Amino acid sequence: MLKIDLKQENLTEEQINWFEQAFKRCARRIILSTTLAGCGHPGGSLSSLSLLLVVYSIAKVNPQEPRSLDRDRIVVSHGHISPGVYSVLCEYQFFPEDPFLMEFRRAGSAFAGHVEQAVPGVEWNTGNLGQGLSAACGMAKALKLKELSNRVFCFMGDGEQQKGQVIEARRWAVKFKLDNLITLIDYNKLQIGGNIFDVMPQDLKAEIEATKWNVLEIDGHNFKEIFKALKTAIERKVPYPEHPTAIIAHTVMGKGISFMENDPKWHGMALPDDLAKKALEELGFDPEELDFLKEKRKTWKVSFKHQPHEPLPIDLKIPGPTVYPPEVKTDCRSAYGKALLNLAKENNPQTGIPKILGLTCDLEGSVKMTDFKKWSPQAFFESGVQEHHTASVAGALSKEGFSVFFSTFGVFAVDEVYNQLRINSINRTALKVVSTHLGADVGEDGPTHQCIDYIGLLLNLYDFEIYLPADPNQTDHIIRYIADKPYNVFVGMGRSKLPIITKEDGTPYFDEKYTFIPGKGDWIRRGDKGVIITYGTMVPYAVKAWEILHSESIEVSLLNIASIRPLPEQDLWEASKLKNLLVVEDHLVETGLGAKIASFLSINKIQANLILLGHKTICSSGKPAELFKHAGLDPESIAQAMKNLIK
Amino acid sequence: MLKIDLKQENLTEEQINWFEQAFKRCARRIILSTTLAGCGHPGGSLSSLSLLLVVYSIAKVNPQEPRSLDRDRIVVSHGHISPGVYSVLCEYQFFPEDPFLMEFRRAGSAFAGHVEQAVPGVEWNTGNLGQGLSAACGMAKALKLKELSNRVFCFMGDGEQQKGQVIEARRWAVKFKLDNLITLIDYNKLQIGGNIFDVMPQDLKAEIEATKWNVLEIDGHNFKEIFKALKTAIERKVPYPEHPTAIIAHTVMGKGISFMENDPKWHGMALPDDLAKKALEELGFDPEELDFLKEKRKTWKVSFKHQPHEPLPIDLKIPGPTVYPPEVKTDCRSAYGKALLNLAKENNPQTGIPKILGLTCDLEGSVKMTDFKKWSPQAFFESGVQEHHTASVAGALSKEGFSVFFSTFGVFAVDEVYNQLRINSINRTALKVVSTHLGADVGEDGPTHQCIDYIGLLLNLYDFEIYLPADPNQTDHIIRYIADKPYNVFVGMGRSKLPIITKEDGTPYFDEKYTFIPGKGDWIRRGDKGVIITYGTMVPYAVKAWEILHSESIEVSLLNIASIRPLPEQDLWEASKLKNLLVVEDHLVETGLGAKIASFLSINKIQANLILLGHKTICSSGKPAELFKHAGLDPESIAQAMKNLIK
Repeated sequence: MLKIDLKQENLTEEQINWFEQAFKRCARRIILSTTLAGCGHPGGSLSSLSLLLVVYSIAKVNPQEPRSLDRDRIVVSHGHISPGVYSVLCEYQFFPEDPFLMEFRRAGSAFAGHVEQAVPGVEWNTGNLGQGLSAACGMAKALKLKELSNRVFCFMGDGEQQKGQVIEARRWAVKFKLDNLITLIDYNKLQIGGNIFDVMPQDLKAEIEATKWNVLEIDGHNFKEIFKALKTAIERKVPYPEHPTAIIAHTVMGKGISFMENDPKWHGMALPDDLAKKALEELGFDPEELDFLKEKRKTWKVSFKHQPHEPLPIDLKIPGPTVYPPEVKTDCRSAYGKALLNLAKENNPQTGIPKILGLTCDLEGSVKMTDFKKWSPQAFFESGVQEHHTASVAGALSKEGFSVFFSTFGVFAVDEVYNQLRINSINRTALKVVSTHLGADVGEDGPTHQCIDYIGLLLNLYDFEIYLPADPNQTDHIIRYIADKPYNVFVGMGRSKLPIITKEDGTPYFDEKYTFIPGKGDWIRRGDKGVIITYGTMVPYAVKAWEILHSESIEVSLLNIASIRPLPEQDLWEASKLKNLLVVEDHLVETGLGAKIASFLSINKIQANLILLGHKTICSSGKPAELFKHAGLDPESIAQAMKNLIK
Repeated sequence: MLKIDLKQENLTEEQINWFEQAFKRCARRIILSTTLAGCGHPGGSLSSLSLLLVVYSIAKVNPQEPRSLDRDRIVVSHGHISPGVYSVLCEYQFFPEDPFLMEFRRAGSAFAGHVEQAVPGVEWNTGNLGQGLSAACGMAKALKLKELSNRVFCFMGDGEQQKGQVIEARRWAVKFKLDNLITLIDYNKLQIGGNIFDVMPQDLKAEIEATKWNVLEIDGHNFKEIFKALKTAIERKVPYPEHPTAIIAHTVMGKGISFMENDPKWHGMALPDDLAKKALEELGFDPEELDFLKEKRKTWKVSFKHQPHEPLPIDLKIPGPTVYPPEVKTDCRSAYGKALLNLAKENNPQTGIPKILGLTCDLEGSVKMTDFKKWSPQAFFESGVQEHHTASVAGALSKEGFSVFFSTFGVFAVDEVYNQLRINSINRTALKVVSTHLGADVGEDGPTHQCIDYIGLLLNLYDFEIYLPADPNQTDHIIRYIADKPYNVFVGMGRSKLPIITKEDGTPYFDEKYTFIPGKGDWIRRGDKGVIITYGTMVPYAVKAWEILHSESIEVSLLNIASIRPLPEQDLWEASKLKNLLVVEDHLVETGLGAKIASFLSINKIQANLILLGHKTICSSGKPAELFKHAGLDPESIAQAMKNLIK
């Protein structure tokens, strides 16, 4: 295992010799692991190999303590080169060779087809191209916030340079001066579909330079050049010392194996046995080893211990709630903004390391982050109209011990970045997605801006808790509740000002004595003829419907479900005893809470009369009250639906 | 209404004078419409106004026939400048002024907050930034495919230049030589969050030039310069005559109203009455008109006739099916590739205009489009690792009378581009999304590549039909069925080779006599003790489970539901009579078909014993059979679950 001091001017002959031998040892592992698994990506693993070997020799990483807080971070964005990454980690003694070769791509093993943090030394699960650089930006920013001098090295493929998210990340890295970030692009000019210039012409250097990154171009198999470029980047002897540096490394796919070089076939296909043996011979190894390992693999049991990769704990002071009296008319998003400011005041010193971070995409005012920004500008990240990057970078930041709030409109926070949130989930992030402007409540901005599918989408993110507050008071409670939770949470709200929900005595329902408990519903009103189940923006409408019914001596209950996941099952059992269930929501009826409750009843064999009110299709542009009326969600229609149900 | 001949060298003084007056008339409408509505985006409307006026004067568009086939297309990507667009359309007599001023942003009106095709002259519903250029690319390519010499003008904001999808579109436009595409960027340097350089620093010109577009920079309020730039672009007197041209137009937000100029406040806020009157006065109009129109609006009923915007009809020859005999073992995606080739051979001449188009994102071989590409290369679009752009461009192409197939893996075709598909839906596209590599059936590529949420997501796209074939034969039938349908369809399949599903007599179940009917299930086996309900990759596993049960004289039915939407309700009623329902799917159990059926039963008050088998969380990397076993989806576990259910 080689560790190189950056002070030396050049690599010594001895070091070069070590790299050359290490290249062969790792190439052997790449061939063996993929052929033994019968699948995988050997071609790109070989083209990135020289780069990986040099980076690990200079990076501050410790195989004995792969999660030490002051480590450099090495992110591999083109996660399919897992055989290359694992081979190098093996060379640098992060784990022994056997489990890797025996378990690569087997069910239950840490050694998955695309790199996963279950393997020691891996920092981020990748596979969907174009997201790794965003994660690397998050780590680089986290290091800077924590005043650590560590660096982030981000490996990328050349095909993934086509993803739009990559240029979003590049701009963000310049805006936030990530001089501690270096990307190494494996420029082998081949992607699955063949030559990159045929697949999608791109002047990579010009594009990167247009974003004011430093660009160094090297031979990606010349160890001396690789070292020199890294040294230049690290010592910031570059045109823009405050900006990140990209190293475009000209490489050869399948490098080192004569018949694999420059053949795109080996991008995503393992060598068959005969060719694998030929390759081992070329590398100077015994080809018969393949047969031996093949036998060994047959009886090997998957057993390699997975590396834990929980987010770092978040340690906050949570001040007591703000209670808005009934005479106040404000919106949930303003209550969110106030709660966030309140939390920041307790936890973000005016100078020094903040604990709470906020990100938005050109909607600071609408999502009410302005006061937060003013209090702790160093903790606020205006990320531009770049939602894909922002969702990913926020995810990465949330693993670093910060309480990270990402806020934008529902159509951007959920619909646009669903897959970025999905990859965050796979990475066990602890992100707080607080979305404003949900539902037809958005009003005049029309269907492109009306998010009426958030529950339908978020239920697919198996690890996200989903909370939808009923009024500003419940918003305040929920924001304080989530701030230090070490998992992903979605909190959603509409746009409009809402009345304060009160008890029958006229005092706030969600007062200072109220405690938000996930999986618990709120019985706003009690009556035994049936129950209106609702949440969010619809609660005040349902209260009015309740009042209409009450005035006609039809006594029903009103159940607010602010916790969509976990679902308040106990409350639903209780509700089902009232026989008549009317679910009301500013959401597509096919995929919202109503459908979820219907499914719950069926699976649990609970009989009840059930009617679901919501949107059957998209709405138009118009005032929310008009849109709700059109969709049968106004108080009169709700009351009428309940009467029909009782009949 | 001014129409200008491009042959003239410069604008005449008379023409300039007309533009100056028209600017004032349109500015008046912008102020009135937004102030009357109490909301909207006057600032950007004014900064884009000069550009809009000149483009409409030279574009080949006809207000009498706004959907004529040989029109130029004018796409407005920053759809929030609807007041500006409607004002100019009004000036060019696409509709009278009254309905616009009276109905702007009112429920049910065509004059929505963001531009919609319901308004004559509008080509694409926009609002979510960054997608309009992709749609414009689709239109430009459609014109070229149809051998029409028309042009596409695409207006864009400067804030949206930050969206990654924009650079994807730019590269695509160069690859496919869209010399008939001109974008006009309203470079007013302000976005919601303030100065664009503060929000997200970007060297716009350098970025565009890096993609080898032609770039012209002009004063966006100088009518002469605007005309000259358009003339230069149209006459292709530019460095890259085969490539598109971007006109960066330096403009002033709020142009023409002294107190609005360069103030970002007026990006998304209407003037209050007093300021609106001041603005009208500045423009030389009677300020009292506001009060008069306000009164008029109070009693005006929304009545403006919406412009229809169905996709153009698709006229195809559909050849008869291919039937794969039971001894063949192939995958559904190969059957898809063969059916697509078969359709192309009948409908795409080797030279001339094709009717069927195919798009993929660097996965041509995996999605089996290679033979299609070889047959009609002019109809195949390798779009690189640029899924967001590709989903949008494919959507736009699908409205133009072509049968458009967009194919990639599930995680990219659904998870990554959900919001692009949503905007397609709003635009009434007729796209065929044929996704391969669904489910844990993807295997060793691991969780980032395993799409186990496609039903959960697609159910939110209210207009997508969802078909999931059980084997290569049903795939063949479905692909032929969808080819000429004028609506959005999703067809999904796994990765593995699957046995041919047979009747009990051993002959193919989906043979030449079979007809695919949406909303109809397939009773593969009959038995009266219960029913296994399944689809896609799981069908052969369920057949094996059925065989296990059958061998133990436990006779159950096996119902294949290839049509998830529309749901085969009749078959579900029939299934419920068998009392014991076991749903089996390679999908998250919380959001898949099982949940949908549970919900259906509940809403229809159908009592049954129901068990849902599927994934409770993400899977690992590994062989599909191992992953299925781990999730309890192997034949033995399915059979056992049915036995438990019957007990």
